[in-house]
Amino acid sequence: MKTAFIIFDRMTALDLIGVYDPLTRLKSMNFVPEFNWQMCAFTEEISDDRGLRFVPDTVAESLGGYDLIVVPGGFGTRALQHDKLFTDWLKSAAPVKLKTSVCTGALLLGSAGFLAGKRATTHPNAFEELKLYCAAVETRRIVDEGDVVTARGVSSSLDLGLHLVERIAGSKARAHIAKQMDYPYGELVRPPPAGK
Amino acid sequence: MKTAFIIFDRMTALDLIGVYDPLTRLKSMNFVPEFNWQMCAFTEEISDDRGLRFVPDTVAESLGGYDLIVVPGGFGTRALQHDKLFTDWLKSAAPVKLKTSVCTGALLLGSAGFLAGKRATTHPNAFEELKLYCAAVETRRIVDEGDVVTARGVSSSLDLGLHLVERIAGSKARAHIAKQMDYPYGELVRPPPAGK
Repeated sequence: MKTAFIIFDRMTALDLIGVYDPLTRLKSMNFVPEFNWQMCAFTEEISDDRGLRFVPDTVAESLGGYDLIVVPGGFGTRALQHDKLFTDWLKSAAPVKLKTSVCTGALLLGSAGFLAGKRATTHPNAFEELKLYCAAVETRRIVDEGDVVTARGVSSSLDLGLHLVERIAGSKARAHIAKQMDYPYGELVRPPPAGK
Repeated sequence: MKTAFIIFDRMTALDLIGVYDPLTRLKSMNFVPEFNWQMCAFTEEISDDRGLRFVPDTVAESLGGYDLIVVPGGFGTRALQHDKLFTDWLKSAAPVKLKTSVCTGALLLGSAGFLAGKRATTHPNAFEELKLYCAAVETRRIVDEGDVVTARGVSSSLDLGLHLVERIAGSKARAHIAKQMDYPYGELVRPPPAGK
């Protein structure tokens, strides 16, 4: 199980790390020992929207070989959604079976065409903008359309991470990981099963 | 207002980023325009406990000139709490008026002597270990002792960040930042005011 965390300039670090923490515990806590991941960028130099530097594992390589992509949001998305080179790169993820986003990362999934005909969500400030790309914008914290899962604003990243943990490894793994994260909130927003 | 985020090898990224997000919004959302921060390390090469690289702004420089330090936890703390060179470096933060930790970062504050006579908290797995360093271990999510504030496990980092936002800029700033983070949970665990 191979995951690509998509990183880009002026992303929001918590959008990324909030999913990264629970998901990578699938490996570190030994639920899915073969779970692995890479930080994938289109350009070498990546800083978040407040100046923190991130070091990519791969640069401008095809995303077609992954099983899961995670796309965070942040101010950078506003320009990147209209950047043809970046969007073409993201489109290389077309064969990936599970495409996910946090916050305005949904605008990037949208500009790559991955939300066509789907329900999706994003940061409440970007609900209007997202309508261009999907069948319906929902206000729920996690919208699971089977092959595409979108989460709302920044901190919903933790809930998305736990949701993906449950899809990949089941509810017991989710409960263990949430406990290790000392996260008592997730159950409050647990979405209905995929497609319901 | 100058903040040092302490980073070290085998830290847990979410312990750091969960505080960093709300706190740095004091500047990016213009509540405290003069708020600034640096990522401070004792060694050049820093990766989190799952391999993600972080790039420090300062290495082995004194921490005495900051107004706030934030110490994350992670597996790295278990050895570092007994590492004399690291602990001596952390002790350079003695004059800092507000010292804070997330998760097992409390063990590092403890080994530097900053928890002596104080109540404190940490990840539930480390409650016993923390007893060596403080007057009493509490199970609350945030323990505010005025000049020292400790938070429980990993995800309590977001709650600590919002708590510090409120101390620095007031409850309106906290509410705005929590809304921008799309974080509906913080109010559930809002601790009593400092010292109460």
